[in-house]
Amino acid sequence: MKTLIVVSHPQLADSPTQQFLKACAAGVTGATWHHLDALGRFDVAAEQAQILAADRLVFEFPLYWYQAPASLHEWLARVWTRGFAYDEQGGRLRGKSLGMVVSYSQPRSAYQLGGTENVSLSALLSPYAALARKTGMTLLAPLEIAQFGYLTEQQRGELFAQYQQYLTVGRPARFAEQAAWFLAALAARAETDPTAALMHDTLAERQDQLASLQQTITELREGEAD
Amino acid sequence: MKTLIVVSHPQLADSPTQQFLKACAAGVTGATWHHLDALGRFDVAAEQAQILAADRLVFEFPLYWYQAPASLHEWLARVWTRGFAYDEQGGRLRGKSLGMVVSYSQPRSAYQLGGTENVSLSALLSPYAALARKTGMTLLAPLEIAQFGYLTEQQRGELFAQYQQYLTVGRPARFAEQAAWFLAALAARAETDPTAALMHDTLAERQDQLASLQQTITELREGEAD
Repeated sequence: MKTLIVVSHPQLADSPTQQFLKACAAGVTGATWHHLDALGRFDVAAEQAQILAADRLVFEFPLYWYQAPASLHEWLARVWTRGFAYDEQGGRLRGKSLGMVVSYSQPRSAYQLGGTENVSLSALLSPYAALARKTGMTLLAPLEIAQFGYLTEQQRGELFAQYQQYLTVGRPARFAEQAAWFLAALAARAETDPTAALMHDTLAERQDQLASLQQTITELREGEAD
Repeated sequence: MKTLIVVSHPQLADSPTQQFLKACAAGVTGATWHHLDALGRFDVAAEQAQILAADRLVFEFPLYWYQAPASLHEWLARVWTRGFAYDEQGGRLRGKSLGMVVSYSQPRSAYQLGGTENVSLSALLSPYAALARKTGMTLLAPLEIAQFGYLTEQQRGELFAQYQQYLTVGRPARFAEQAAWFLAALAARAETDPTAALMHDTLAERQDQLASLQQTITELREGEAD
């Protein structure tokens, strides 16, 4: 899968979150890090070509006053033109997937009715749902990064895996596709790392057991239906 | 009332909607037209002083991909700093009112569940509701301008009055405050325009009749409660 990570952040070098994500992305085949604020004036044709070459777009940004920073808006206004992003036939982005990686400095629980921000992230991001609908793209549930600075080493490791999955896995929210990603990642390290080899074999065995249990459940249900 | 109209539009001269609104605003005492895209780099201290001097802020913009253009986001990120817009004590904008004048090229009915855009303007503007809440400002229902190019002369006249009310009237959605605005506007023209004088007297009489009817209803209700 080819993924274009469209990063909107006016001070990328000062953002530990973005520096961490950039390092994660560097290890992902097919993923391109595309920092809008570094581009100056947009070359519309080049931007459109890069979008067309991708299977997945990921808008990545911190929340500034509950929205993306200015560069994402500027880029959308200039690059996502009528005839390219939408037209009577539906536009040229149809069938691609659209993800969002959104970071903020409050805890996750702040973004809900009755939370300290009293509004859900889903409500705040509704313009992107409308954009995906208009252009015929498949919207992925956002990957939320709350209070990156407070994450433990273990939590950072989990985020590393989650983020790489988000860039490459067909349906990142599906457990089976996450497990397949882990198996592939462990297999790649198995030759040089005996622990990875052991983890790979254990996980593979568990996946087989799971598949077998699911088969049993399917048969039982078929029995019920008779 | 002092109103700061914060206009975000990258091509103001080409926008008949904004040119119309600018002409309307020119006739309003206390209203300042403030076009962000014309400012270049923001002078933060000057911007903050202008905001503090206003009783009402009105964000005025067309919908670009369901959101405001980039300049409003840039302005908010640079000017609405911590300590100014919010802090532990609540910030310095508390008690001001916040309005929005939002224009778009679809009919009004497009922006609702099941409409062609399948999303409400309220959902799309939820970041501004969150911003008003965070800063302690009173949010006004937005003034929506749908398909300005298709408005008849009469409809433009109505928009003229609506917009001027939106800039100056305490609670623009209240009928009584709208009527008071009309009476004042007609009184101002009465000396030179006999039609305006006649309309003023007729409207004033109707308002008296309304007030008398409302008094009667109040008394009847009090009787019921006995």
